[in-house]
Amino acid sequence: MKRVLCLIVGLCILISGCVTPAKDTVFQTSTIDALLAGVYEGNMSCRDLLKHGDFGIGTFDHLDGEMIILNGKMYQIKADGKVYKPDMSIKTPFATVCQFTTDRVIPVKAGLDYETISNLINEDAPNQNLFYAIKITGQFKSMKTRSVPGQQKPYPPLKEVTANQPEFNMKNISGTIVGFRCPPYVKGINVPGYHLHFISSDRTQGGHILSFEITKAKCEIDVLSQYFLTLPIDTKEFAETDLSKDRSKELKAVEK
Amino acid sequence: MKRVLCLIVGLCILISGCVTPAKDTVFQTSTIDALLAGVYEGNMSCRDLLKHGDFGIGTFDHLDGEMIILNGKMYQIKADGKVYKPDMSIKTPFATVCQFTTDRVIPVKAGLDYETISNLINEDAPNQNLFYAIKITGQFKSMKTRSVPGQQKPYPPLKEVTANQPEFNMKNISGTIVGFRCPPYVKGINVPGYHLHFISSDRTQGGHILSFEITKAKCEIDVLSQYFLTLPIDTKEFAETDLSKDRSKELKAVEK
Repeated sequence: MKRVLCLIVGLCILISGCVTPAKDTVFQTSTIDALLAGVYEGNMSCRDLLKHGDFGIGTFDHLDGEMIILNGKMYQIKADGKVYKPDMSIKTPFATVCQFTTDRVIPVKAGLDYETISNLINEDAPNQNLFYAIKITGQFKSMKTRSVPGQQKPYPPLKEVTANQPEFNMKNISGTIVGFRCPPYVKGINVPGYHLHFISSDRTQGGHILSFEITKAKCEIDVLSQYFLTLPIDTKEFAETDLSKDRSKELKAVEK
Repeated sequence: MKRVLCLIVGLCILISGCVTPAKDTVFQTSTIDALLAGVYEGNMSCRDLLKHGDFGIGTFDHLDGEMIILNGKMYQIKADGKVYKPDMSIKTPFATVCQFTTDRVIPVKAGLDYETISNLINEDAPNQNLFYAIKITGQFKSMKTRSVPGQQKPYPPLKEVTANQPEFNMKNISGTIVGFRCPPYVKGINVPGYHLHFISSDRTQGGHILSFEITKAKCEIDVLSQYFLTLPIDTKEFAETDLSKDRSKELKAVEK
């Protein structure tokens, strides 16, 4: 009986081609250190990425802007500060997604900024060894973001690109923060600690968050205990990048 | 039609409870640094682990011996040097498995040892940024292994346990080496580079490999581009362990 059911499952998957995002799982393509080193070639289409989650952050082929995924919809914040709906055939060189479900709601007061809300989440979710997806929806007194301009070969390292990054200062804006708190041991693979992007409620502004101050917001977190990493198997640049190097300082420089 | 098929898939999975190991995927439970720190409480049953692969290595609840999985069968090499068939309800605190399929066969000469065969595989499989499962089947002129004795609370760190590890010297023995070459960026999560276990053909001897010399063997490798990590969500010891610490030196000490 079990075998028959397994066979049916297999056949159904083959026929339908549908992928169900795994519960409580962070899905990631490629590694942050490969991106830091300048591996900007996309390796997974946006269409395929969305099969693994309805919530997340990343970037696009040849580093063409910041990616944010919210409620299953993907947005591209380009270096001109505008928000685009990317073609689903565009590939991403680095992205992190999950199927967001709210495990906890953390009460948030006005005046909290990046550091103080990070501390608040750390107190509420003290297990630093798991992954957390973070969604903060509300009104922000200030929101400072950046984006990155698309690059051409030969690709410069990410810290050179972000040294001249366009930054955007928004005031009294409503929207949603989307991101992750990753455990320290993902160093070299993803960003240890917090990595957050923003999209405005009217979906016209956003980017990689540099700083913010909350007016009124709801902070939801999803505890994630599984981590799925898929690597670019056919990308020469990925294969040839020295990923044994400690790039913590470079990461710190680009996250500013 | 697609939705109906997805529904059938979901129902089948629910009813049958069967897990199909993902192709080209390394499946791992917990992290090496948690093990180094003394988190020896099992978090996944051997039965569940085998659903994710037919090939792999690991250890058992309260560090009771070395685990080796070959052709879907699991063996436990205890500190007495004997091989046991573990009860499937026993849990593992750390294990790495995959569904082994041979991608390449590397010609192997007599006289090769741990270092020279590692160099040979590195030349044949130069992409250091992917995972490789390694299976070497044959005759060995010498095979030196170790095992670890089961521990009691309060658990000492792994380097203290392995400081007094029982070692086993086998001569002219046939059997199989089972293990992985992991990319450098898994530092803190798994063992960067080579991590190999051994089981004799008659399934009476084995352990964590310290050194060996080949008489005649076949070396097969499976290239793995996906990595799935599951974390102990309810283990207090895992939650409370400082996994931001660099434990490279401890790892080097225990791998000897």
